[in-house]
Amino acid sequence: LVNGHAVDSIAIDDRGLAYGDGLFETIKVIGGNALHASLHWQRLEHGCQQLKLRCDFKRLQSEVDGLLQSVDGQAHILKIIITRQQAERGYRASENAETNRYISLQKIVVNTQWQQGVAVRVCDHRLASNHPLAAIKHLSRLDNVLARSEWSNAVAEGLMLDQYGHVVEGTASNLFLIKGTQLITPSLHRCGVAGVIRQLIIEQLSQRCGLTAVVKDLKLADCYSADEMFICNSLMGICPVIAVGCHLKNCGPNTLQLQAALSQLDACKEIKA
Amino acid sequence: LVNGHAVDSIAIDDRGLAYGDGLFETIKVIGGNALHASLHWQRLEHGCQQLKLRCDFKRLQSEVDGLLQSVDGQAHILKIIITRQQAERGYRASENAETNRYISLQKIVVNTQWQQGVAVRVCDHRLASNHPLAAIKHLSRLDNVLARSEWSNAVAEGLMLDQYGHVVEGTASNLFLIKGTQLITPSLHRCGVAGVIRQLIIEQLSQRCGLTAVVKDLKLADCYSADEMFICNSLMGICPVIAVGCHLKNCGPNTLQLQAALSQLDACKEIKA
Repeated sequence: LVNGHAVDSIAIDDRGLAYGDGLFETIKVIGGNALHASLHWQRLEHGCQQLKLRCDFKRLQSEVDGLLQSVDGQAHILKIIITRQQAERGYRASENAETNRYISLQKIVVNTQWQQGVAVRVCDHRLASNHPLAAIKHLSRLDNVLARSEWSNAVAEGLMLDQYGHVVEGTASNLFLIKGTQLITPSLHRCGVAGVIRQLIIEQLSQRCGLTAVVKDLKLADCYSADEMFICNSLMGICPVIAVGCHLKNCGPNTLQLQAALSQLDACKEIKA
Repeated sequence: LVNGHAVDSIAIDDRGLAYGDGLFETIKVIGGNALHASLHWQRLEHGCQQLKLRCDFKRLQSEVDGLLQSVDGQAHILKIIITRQQAERGYRASENAETNRYISLQKIVVNTQWQQGVAVRVCDHRLASNHPLAAIKHLSRLDNVLARSEWSNAVAEGLMLDQYGHVVEGTASNLFLIKGTQLITPSLHRCGVAGVIRQLIIEQLSQRCGLTAVVKDLKLADCYSADEMFICNSLMGICPVIAVGCHLKNCGPNTLQLQAALSQLDACKEIKA
C-alpha cells in the first residue's frame, strides 16, 4: 500500500530515497495479529517527533488493520516506511511537508534453529555516533549495510562497536548480557536502534525472571566475561549467543527463562487475535 | 529515466529507500553540457568501489548523453542516483546484486546573487564521524537534513561541525578559508562530502591563482580569523562568505580571483558543448 493505494512503486523524488529522510518499522505478524504493535507504534510516533515528520497515525493504523484482515494464519513481516515528501530541491524540507506511507506484508519462514543458539562475529565497520539520531529507526542505515556485508558464512549476526569501542548492538538486533542477577544491555545514547523486544525485556520480562535490567556502556571484554549473552529482535525473538568469534559461551538458564517468558507473551497475543 | 525507461517511479523494495544503500550525483548542465562531468564520473566510480556497487557506467553514460541531447540552452540540474537492488529481506546484500540507475533532469534558476556574498550560520546538529563513509556522496544523509532544518530565514547556508568540534562543510557545500597565500579546506577523512568544485579548486584553480592548497582539520576560530572565506558546490559555484553568525567577514580579492577562474573554466565547457 502506498498512501492507501495498492501499488508497489514510489515517486523517484521521494526524500526517503534521496536522503534517507524517514523511518521504518518491521513487525512480526502471526495469525493476522501484529505482535507488540503498541510498542512499534510508540517508537514510530517518537521517531516522527524526533525527525519532525507529520504522520496521520489514525489513517496509517486503519490501512494496516485493513491489510491484516486479508492475511492467513502463516507468519508474515509487516514493514512500514514513513518518508517526508519532497517540496523543493535540496536538503531543506518544508515545515508543512506531508509524509508518504508505505506498507508491505511479506510471508516469512521463521528460522527457529537460531533460538537454540547462534554464533556471532565482531564487525570491523563501526557505527557512527550522533546523539540526535541515536535509538530511532531511521532510513539512513549504510553503517548496518556495510557491517552486514563483511561475512557470508553461517555466522548469524555481527556485533557492531561505536567509534569509541563500545559494543552497541548487532547489525539487525539488540544485545543483552547476564552477569549474576544483572541483565545488562548497551546504552543507545550515541547510536544504535532501540528495538521493541529490547524494550519489552527491560520493562517487563527482566522483573518477571528475577533479573535487574541495567543500561550502560559496554566493551567487548564484558561480552567475553558475561555468564550469558543473547541477541534479540522482533522477527527472531531471543537467540542465545553460543560463540563470539573464537570465544565460546554457554546457553544459560536465564536466557532460556527470558525466551520462555517472551514466547508466552507472544502466544497470548496470538490467541487474542 | 529509470534503468533506461522513461518512468518516474521506483520499486518500493529498493535498498536506496530501505537503507540509504546507494550514491548520488548532482551535476550542473549549461547549454546541454554537463559541467565537470569527468570529475563527477570519477567520484561516482570511487563511491561504487567503496560501497561495492556494480554499475554499468557505459550504459549510464549513454543514457545521460541521450537525455542531454533533448535539453535546451537553459540551466538544468542532472541528478543521478545509483542504488543496490534488493535480493532478499534484510541488510545483507547479495554479492552479485545489480544496481538501479535513476536519472532526472530539472530546469533551475541559478541564484547569481549568492555569488556576491552570503551569510552563513553554525548548525547545532553535527555530522557523525565514520571513516569508511567519509567523503563519498551516499544516500544516508539525515545529518544534512536535520542541520538544514534548523533555519528558514535568509541565511544561505549552515556550517556543520563533526563530533569533535572540527568545522567540516556546509549542509550542501564545501568550505574554504584563505590565510595569506594559503587556501585551506577541512580534511574529510572522518565525514563530509568531497565536492567536485572542491577538488577542482584544490587541484587546478589554487595554483592558477597563486595559492597553496592545504587540507587539514579546522576549528570555528580558524573561520573567524581567516582573511577570506567561501563556500562552493556544483550548482552555485564559489560564493564568498560575508558573515558567519555575528562575525562579519570581507569578500576578498583571492576569492574573487578564484571565482573568475572557475567562471572562465565553465565558459570554456559551455563553448565546447
